[in-house]
Amino acid sequence: MRIVILGGDGYLGWPTAMRFSNQGHEVHVVDDYLRRRSHREAGTDSLTPILPDLPSRAAAWREVTGREIGVTEGDLTDWDVIREVFTASRPDAVVHYGEMPSAPYSMKDRAHAVFTQTNNVIGTLNVLWAIRDLAPECHLVKLGTMGEYGTPDIDIEEGYIEIRHNGRADYLPFPKQPGSMYHLSKVHDSHNIHFACRVWGLRATDLHQGVVYGIQTEETHLDDRLATRFDYDDVFGTALNRFCVQAVIGHPLTVYGTGGQTRGYLNILDTLRCVELAVVHPAEFGELRVFNQFTESFSIMELAELVRKAGAAYGLDVEIRSVDNPRVELEEHYYNPAHTKLLDLGLRPHLLSAELVESMFSVIERFKDRVIQDHILPHDRWRPSR
Amino acid sequence: MRIVILGGDGYLGWPTAMRFSNQGHEVHVVDDYLRRRSHREAGTDSLTPILPDLPSRAAAWREVTGREIGVTEGDLTDWDVIREVFTASRPDAVVHYGEMPSAPYSMKDRAHAVFTQTNNVIGTLNVLWAIRDLAPECHLVKLGTMGEYGTPDIDIEEGYIEIRHNGRADYLPFPKQPGSMYHLSKVHDSHNIHFACRVWGLRATDLHQGVVYGIQTEETHLDDRLATRFDYDDVFGTALNRFCVQAVIGHPLTVYGTGGQTRGYLNILDTLRCVELAVVHPAEFGELRVFNQFTESFSIMELAELVRKAGAAYGLDVEIRSVDNPRVELEEHYYNPAHTKLLDLGLRPHLLSAELVESMFSVIERFKDRVIQDHILPHDRWRPSR
Repeated sequence: MRIVILGGDGYLGWPTAMRFSNQGHEVHVVDDYLRRRSHREAGTDSLTPILPDLPSRAAAWREVTGREIGVTEGDLTDWDVIREVFTASRPDAVVHYGEMPSAPYSMKDRAHAVFTQTNNVIGTLNVLWAIRDLAPECHLVKLGTMGEYGTPDIDIEEGYIEIRHNGRADYLPFPKQPGSMYHLSKVHDSHNIHFACRVWGLRATDLHQGVVYGIQTEETHLDDRLATRFDYDDVFGTALNRFCVQAVIGHPLTVYGTGGQTRGYLNILDTLRCVELAVVHPAEFGELRVFNQFTESFSIMELAELVRKAGAAYGLDVEIRSVDNPRVELEEHYYNPAHTKLLDLGLRPHLLSAELVESMFSVIERFKDRVIQDHILPHDRWRPSR
Repeated sequence: MRIVILGGDGYLGWPTAMRFSNQGHEVHVVDDYLRRRSHREAGTDSLTPILPDLPSRAAAWREVTGREIGVTEGDLTDWDVIREVFTASRPDAVVHYGEMPSAPYSMKDRAHAVFTQTNNVIGTLNVLWAIRDLAPECHLVKLGTMGEYGTPDIDIEEGYIEIRHNGRADYLPFPKQPGSMYHLSKVHDSHNIHFACRVWGLRATDLHQGVVYGIQTEETHLDDRLATRFDYDDVFGTALNRFCVQAVIGHPLTVYGTGGQTRGYLNILDTLRCVELAVVHPAEFGELRVFNQFTESFSIMELAELVRKAGAAYGLDVEIRSVDNPRVELEEHYYNPAHTKLLDLGLRPHLLSAELVESMFSVIERFKDRVIQDHILPHDRWRPSR
């Protein structure tokens, strides 16, 4: 298959590109290094050293495996970039990770919020138009987020819910109550994609993904130069990855508020497998299919306790510290989202274990001198100071 | 009260400004003439002659009534414009009509879709940020549309619905299935505004408005120079207004498809009253209140028949012609939206009647030499040609 990976320089994008390439697919990656630029502006960086750009990553991949990955360095909000990629590649599937992915980044101030929504919504609109006019058979596999749903007081279904009301019933999009300007941009995307499927007859799968953890995939193991990025800072770091870095460097685990916030999580290995399952089992034309892409739910405090326990076994003395929650979110809430559709397609989850956490410790230890300590605590607050 | 009207040069914005000014409120209007520019580009125009810009409209208003309306000519996507308006006016209420309002315009091509979503979403984000940081007590009264809901197979509630599911229940945003890139932009706004209320504690009312008809208000009657614009072309014209113009000039009434499409409608007089009711009864802090703002539902064919009948009484020979539907929409569907909240606040509807239609004929007749005939049939199709 001809597969285009948008956001192919990212934490998940680059491993996904290598995976599909390793399986013999024709892979083309697109990225304009937004994440790298944002890190440079903030004075933060990936824990793992990564090659400086996509051409060098693709060159290393060629050296190690003999396989080619095509590269476009460009911005998805620039129609000329998208048009050229689609005209040249005529993809069978597009895997779309190519968005600004951070809630704290989007909440810094007005300009960051406007940038986040413009960048994500317009980039995705361009992709939809490109599929419509240049590759109408192409299956869009879009990375959404479980955060689109928020924390309603009922079970969360996969994208849609049957609503019975006043003696009638309909199967409708699940209501969305996202918690940041970033999460809102994903909700806007979901509505735009749904429209493109309903009205233009496109086909798409929206992967409402949970929080991803892990550092190694089958392909990153092959050579140090194939490493993916690993973020642990206050803006781009996510819960378990950050805790593991904090544990290794002797920083207290920073739990926001009570730590009762419960979310879905999955191993990076399962992300790659889920994306693969979506690509090889495409949606029907006219359908926006939604999969809730996570394997287990944990509260933040449960994760912190797990890391403390694994730390003790590993010889690390781990402290848990509650910090004033910079976000506006419920710290105690009901949370029971469905996630059976990917299991039905054949996903066999890599569940979270103390052993997995310890294996992350050992990778992190190799790079612990690279940790930038002054960007671990949260800087940006959701609520305006009055 | 200090009231800012965004989009104060428009069909509804200008009459709203005059109404509030006439009631003794301090009114400031903002507009960058997007609608006028779009008409010039398309070779179309308002049926009614209107003064060339807001300063001349405000000057005429001053001459006729002795009252002042403040004017800013500027673009809501430009933060400097918004910041200056909010800093100078410190509004108690903002009535936000300031968006690109046409579904066919948004569906012309990729560039028009991108423009529509950027213009509407970013303009409204700027307004939210301005309220948050410069006027946190200000009540936002935002014009949304009944088109946000689409045509689900259950009763449509006012913004939210109680969903009972697997033995639990929650009161959640009503699912949205909008039918154009323009309608999508309004859905994105609704989610952004809901977030600003939930997370920042702002207060807002989203008026999910039906299709407005009518040409005269109490204030436009005072002087010909105070007329509001009246669109009947394929891009900016809306159902009943267009049919009335078609009837007067002897053009067949253009019904799209079977004409079974049912929507909510209201008289322009009721729009002004609804906006007034929302402004004088503000939402609570932290609340996004949604009112379904229409007074009666009609199918397109019912409207066409009404115009034919009123035409016969008036001496016009009116033909109804079904044209191939340029949109992708259900032509036969269930439609039963709630609309009691504005009635509860005191709205007394001006219902549609043959007499009202005949009074529209007589105004239109005065200007019938201004009608541009070659922009009446639809040009832009929702579905791509393959």
